[in-house]
Amino acid sequence: MATDPAAAGMRDSARVEAFSDGVFAIAITLLVLEISVPSAHSAHELWHALGEEWPSYGAYVVSFLVIGVMWVNHHTVFSYIARVDRTLVFLNLLLLLVVAALPFPTALVAENLREPGASNVAAAVYGAVMVAHAVTFFLFWYYVTRTGHCFDDRVDVRAARATRLRFGLGLIVYPLTVALAFASAVLALALHGLLAVYYAFNQTPVPTRQPGSAEPK
Amino acid sequence: MATDPAAAGMRDSARVEAFSDGVFAIAITLLVLEISVPSAHSAHELWHALGEEWPSYGAYVVSFLVIGVMWVNHHTVFSYIARVDRTLVFLNLLLLLVVAALPFPTALVAENLREPGASNVAAAVYGAVMVAHAVTFFLFWYYVTRTGHCFDDRVDVRAARATRLRFGLGLIVYPLTVALAFASAVLALALHGLLAVYYAFNQTPVPTRQPGSAEPK
Amino acid sequence: MATDPAAAGMRDSARVEAFSDGVFAIAITLLVLEISVPSAHSAHELWHALGEEWPSYGAYVVSFLVIGVMWVNHHTVFSYIARVDRTLVFLNLLLLLVVAALPFPTALVAENLREPGASNVAAAVYGAVMVAHAVTFFLFWYYVTRTGHCFDDRVDVRAARATRLRFGLGLIVYPLTVALAFASAVLALALHGLLAVYYAFNQTPVPTRQPGSAEPK
Amino acid sequence: MATDPAAAGMRDSARVEAFSDGVFAIAITLLVLEISVPSAHSAHELWHALGEEWPSYGAYVVSFLVIGVMWVNHHTVFSYIARVDRTLVFLNLLLLLVVAALPFPTALVAENLREPGASNVAAAVYGAVMVAHAVTFFLFWYYVTRTGHCFDDRVDVRAARATRLRFGLGLIVYPLTVALAFASAVLALALHGLLAVYYAFNQTPVPTRQPGSAEPK
Repeated sequence: MATDPAAAGMRDSARVEAFSDGVFAIAITLLVLEISVPSAHSAHELWHALGEEWPSYGAYVVSFLVIGVMWVNHHTVFSYIARVDRTLVFLNLLLLLVVAALPFPTALVAENLREPGASNVAAAVYGAVMVAHAVTFFLFWYYVTRTGHCFDDRVDVRAARATRLRFGLGLIVYPLTVALAFASAVLALALHGLLAVYYAFNQTPVPTRQPGSAEPK
Repeated sequence: MATDPAAAGMRDSARVEAFSDGVFAIAITLLVLEISVPSAHSAHELWHALGEEWPSYGAYVVSFLVIGVMWVNHHTVFSYIARVDRTLVFLNLLLLLVVAALPFPTALVAENLREPGASNVAAAVYGAVMVAHAVTFFLFWYYVTRTGHCFDDRVDVRAARATRLRFGLGLIVYPLTVALAFASAVLALALHGLLAVYYAFNQTPVPTRQPGSAEPK
Repeated sequence: MATDPAAAGMRDSARVEAFSDGVFAIAITLLVLEISVPSAHSAHELWHALGEEWPSYGAYVVSFLVIGVMWVNHHTVFSYIARVDRTLVFLNLLLLLVVAALPFPTALVAENLREPGASNVAAAVYGAVMVAHAVTFFLFWYYVTRTGHCFDDRVDVRAARATRLRFGLGLIVYPLTVALAFASAVLALALHGLLAVYYAFNQTPVPTRQPGSAEPK
Repeated sequence: MATDPAAAGMRDSARVEAFSDGVFAIAITLLVLEISVPSAHSAHELWHALGEEWPSYGAYVVSFLVIGVMWVNHHTVFSYIARVDRTLVFLNLLLLLVVAALPFPTALVAENLREPGASNVAAAVYGAVMVAHAVTFFLFWYYVTRTGHCFDDRVDVRAARATRLRFGLGLIVYPLTVALAFASAVLALALHGLLAVYYAFNQTPVPTRQPGSAEPK
């Protein structure tokens, strides 16, 4: 009788990634429930009610892009991870806890964006959740690059460690969105959308050792 | 140290497709939440309340078929794509943004179908979301067929490019459903259902080079 | 230039099954939203409010087992299907349309089970949705066994065709639950639960040609 | 004509696990819907409303960790299971029935945590659902270790049977959380969170026969 290495802590990363993908897909699809459905007695009344809901449409589009790009980044990082241990599974769970929470600040912004004072608070809470995401993502990346024992053989661990700085940029940028929220909630929300589009096209590459032999996984 | 081609932009399409499938499955299953649940004190009262909800049943069936057929088409197109780059992932995200939004116009139609003026507006919004889907689907297909660098080797890129016209048909048909909505909301909704059934059985085939060696993936 | 067989209609069944699994998993997990959450000012008041909700707990348990067993059966049938064509994809979509609708009659029963007349109507609607499921499942099985062109090579098509009768049993049993609903809504709901447990342990086996070489897929 | 072993009862465990993963992922992501979205007319009013909701945030975090760790444990156990029979599928369905129910006691605690008497009842119900989970998990493990016919060849069945005691610990610990709930609802909730973190890092290892040849699956 003995305990195998898998049970002792190391496991295949595929199912952790599949579970995470599920959480991302559900959180992104639940966003639509935030848009309330007006009912009206005339065409004019319904146009008006639909027009009043512009904060809901804006919050939907921004959060959809935000969660979508979070997924892309999570997926990129995971494509270099071959094994997970308990700590990594737990750090990933914390990261998902923040991702799955995003429909709440999204709805909060949608509900309060047209109220002068309340809109600033709502956008600040939205920014604070993004800060929490940046923190959990950084913790995750910090742990992965510390020893590199979870990486796939292709990865150049030392060089990967050097990317921490770029991964940690969110820790500086997102607190600024909280500050901006108190100046203008709409601008803060727009900035979150722009940052998502920026990150969609400018992902931090994970450095690999052998360029020739590296195959897309 | 070097950056591998995967991180530089090209990645396997499998996980993007799995994520998309998740979004389609969730959006289609959330549709049922739109049907409100009546409670009554007598059998007669409950029959009556259930009868009043026919727009909800109709909207549920139509949108279920619409999203179901969107999934089939998305899946068919993806079965010819072997690699994705950042632009494709982003265009796919825009496409999913529209798909995941569909429970909203569905509920809007269900809520307003029995009100003369409001029903036209609701059906027009439904049609507008379908136009948005046609646009995002066309952009996706346009990008994929432009260089063909994401295709699987089987695909005849030049011939695939020639199918753009057929793929673009939705750009003409769906605006007409918006116009029809102002004449009759019920007819417009029925047309969406019919178009879904039509597309279920008449998908645009993706042309391939070697008919003999082509294997279903 | 030519059209390959996949695009012409035949495709791999794996992704259709994965999509279906997603719909089943989501529908079964949405059931809990039907249980309303009471808030109270004292322990006694909350116990009372929770006690009043027994129809919700009953409806949750029954529908969870019902959808769970529908999934098991769907999955068993699909384990013998190797290819799908457009008609099969469409029939599967109709089947899923009914499965995804089940949270509605579940909530309807939960809301109305304590009202004498209304409870019978609610249970009858529940039974009617089960009839619709039996019909779509039978249509699916009828089509699959008609030519057998979607089956895996192991399947004995002629013998499989002979199981239609057993598969069609639901077409007789479920209408009886509708009739029973008018006598007692609670008994009708209990019968749905019992039928689910019965089907969990007594699935119709799909006949195969070579017992020795047949391997669980 | 013959019935193959698969149809007769034994099937591959992969799809049962994938379906279960889906249910876990959806239940964990639905938790956020429990946090109600306040709307306010001023910054101060919104801060206040958000502050009042601390029980919702607490319940969200605790239940997220609880379901997350349930998933990890379920996944660990399933990594040693190679085949499933009907009884196992049914026991797994009962286990999922409890997991998918967790958003209800979570919302119940969030709604009632600030009311002295009601909070104790809510926390006790939460504990009772955890007892139900411990019971279904123990039944599952008891059945799997009884004959070991569902295990993968690596597993040392006799030694696995000896772990029942440790797996059964939840049957003693969780009833204590119900008792604690009547003393302090907040402490009981905190204990659920701590137990989740404890189980995240102290999983019961499944004993295997050949330490050398055992490969992470």
